[in-house]
Amino acid sequence: MTTYKLAFLGFGNVGQALAELLLRKEKELARNYNIKFSVTGIGTGSHGSVVNADGIDLSAALDAMRNGRTSTGLSIHDLGLLAGQPTSSALELIRASQADVLFENTSVNHKTGQPALDYVKTALELGMHVCTANKGPVVHGYAELQTLAKENGVKFLHESTVMDGAPIFSLFREAIPASNLLSFKGVLNSTTNLMLARMEKGDSFDEAVKYCQEVGIAETDPSGDVDGWDAAIKVSALVTVLMGIPLKPQDVDREGIRDISPEMIADALKDGNRYKLTCSAERDGDKVIAKVAPELIPSTSPIYSVEGTSSIVEFKSDVLGDLSVVEKDPGPDTTAYGLLADFVNAVR
Amino acid sequence: MTTYKLAFLGFGNVGQALAELLLRKEKELARNYNIKFSVTGIGTGSHGSVVNADGIDLSAALDAMRNGRTSTGLSIHDLGLLAGQPTSSALELIRASQADVLFENTSVNHKTGQPALDYVKTALELGMHVCTANKGPVVHGYAELQTLAKENGVKFLHESTVMDGAPIFSLFREAIPASNLLSFKGVLNSTTNLMLARMEKGDSFDEAVKYCQEVGIAETDPSGDVDGWDAAIKVSALVTVLMGIPLKPQDVDREGIRDISPEMIADALKDGNRYKLTCSAERDGDKVIAKVAPELIPSTSPIYSVEGTSSIVEFKSDVLGDLSVVEKDPGPDTTAYGLLADFVNAVR
Repeated sequence: MTTYKLAFLGFGNVGQALAELLLRKEKELARNYNIKFSVTGIGTGSHGSVVNADGIDLSAALDAMRNGRTSTGLSIHDLGLLAGQPTSSALELIRASQADVLFENTSVNHKTGQPALDYVKTALELGMHVCTANKGPVVHGYAELQTLAKENGVKFLHESTVMDGAPIFSLFREAIPASNLLSFKGVLNSTTNLMLARMEKGDSFDEAVKYCQEVGIAETDPSGDVDGWDAAIKVSALVTVLMGIPLKPQDVDREGIRDISPEMIADALKDGNRYKLTCSAERDGDKVIAKVAPELIPSTSPIYSVEGTSSIVEFKSDVLGDLSVVEKDPGPDTTAYGLLADFVNAVR
Repeated sequence: MTTYKLAFLGFGNVGQALAELLLRKEKELARNYNIKFSVTGIGTGSHGSVVNADGIDLSAALDAMRNGRTSTGLSIHDLGLLAGQPTSSALELIRASQADVLFENTSVNHKTGQPALDYVKTALELGMHVCTANKGPVVHGYAELQTLAKENGVKFLHESTVMDGAPIFSLFREAIPASNLLSFKGVLNSTTNLMLARMEKGDSFDEAVKYCQEVGIAETDPSGDVDGWDAAIKVSALVTVLMGIPLKPQDVDREGIRDISPEMIADALKDGNRYKLTCSAERDGDKVIAKVAPELIPSTSPIYSVEGTSSIVEFKSDVLGDLSVVEKDPGPDTTAYGLLADFVNAVR
């Protein structure tokens, strides 16, 4: 039995779902994997942070965040529920936590990956495994981070960056050895997928955007989704990691869904087709042709039935022909599971 | 770099495809996994067998089988192409090969798993890893074989027994740790799936059977497929391994496709639905409810678009909601890849 010290950087929906999952799986991890854990650091976005070498009471931290007791502006530390020291910055938290594993879940920066990239580097240099749901460090520093991880004898894992925790990276890393990915195609942005489904039911584009904002899956500025940026950064992550070809989101040929009118959608439905914002990439020697664009999909394609916030990727490799992975109705819980899976795979 | 001695028991379509794949991946295995190999035994169904501690020329063996030079009734050994000794039985081949890894690809015995079960036991007792595409030993001896493997410090792997080499068992073993499978549903028998598709195009049941026999995917006696036995043994394998509940094919509630008439299929199509022979299982405490039966599938289901010989399974677990794996147009090559993946995963 080994006890691992864990630090959370970012304690929003995903961080809290991970905390809950860890508590729920505590006995199972001990029984089946000889894994015990102690949380030594929690850094929140706007409620301060806390470190405690003796272990933070994770249930109490969850309660504090969930019952809104931190929304008064008090920090997670000031609440007095948690024994420990406050820290003044994310980097200080990482250092002071002395953790074995850092769960990095701060906000994504599509353009540069910062400051998350520095957080991940610092943790790896300190000999911590890093598990992240943040696409930024993957697309802006993958090769460097893998080298750093190797030099420090630890793992940099990022299952939850694409398809919310469904096994994609681990599939190729663990389950499909000695394979070469030739191309892939899929639906990876759930917000636009839900918008297109709403438009099939009669919503205008603006109504569909408003609906997605109301149910909390679209941002106030929806351009990251509707202009294909989120899809493009996921394509970059898949190409970078699974094809071994570094690719920035800016280098993906990208077209969003703004030009798809309700009339086009109605016409497509009449012909038995649906519009989907598809993501694709195809290896071409040492290069790759990568694309995000709306596409007409017939009912004979597995992409056709991918509803609402569900997602799919079809992979073509040199050993398996077409293999698809479909994830239905994901949420913070499934993203949290990807992080837990990374943790187990990093240390087992 | 480690050199592994390999033995092939069964050298039909799958065994030959595996031999070809090993030759194609030889350099990649050395470069990426430090794996080298030498084939020390080949046992064919009706052309004898050969062992050679110094290594059999695998290309020559493939040529002999593929160019029909063994179809004269001569044994693979008698051809003189291959230096080595003939063996008189499968068990003798296993022992004499002194292999590190046995690829067991003899014919499946749905009822008892024999004689393959004894072959696997013998190999495990001799300290060989066993990789098999044969469902018999999995559903008739899984717990015993896993115990034997553990005692002898080796692996018993069987990726290619369900969905031809698509990662199913390795997915749960390696990529989705700390998960509990609650239920699954899918299309696992490709022959009936193709028959139903032919009937959608106007074939009668008998014509559809005949077509599948002509293209070589249905047996002379098609009952194993059309009565749901092949689907049932796959359900048994998934339940036994992934749910940890031993289940025999005889204990699956099984209904084939003989009662599905062309009229029923035409009516279903009019309503936008298709008939599929679905396989399902649901955990119920320590027990399981397992079923094979024809079912009406709407176009909103990912099962709807599974065409021809393709297959799909949707998994519901306590950590990931619905996760589906879809395999398109598999063949002996994909089954062979599952065996290669097992080999790499056994020794890396």
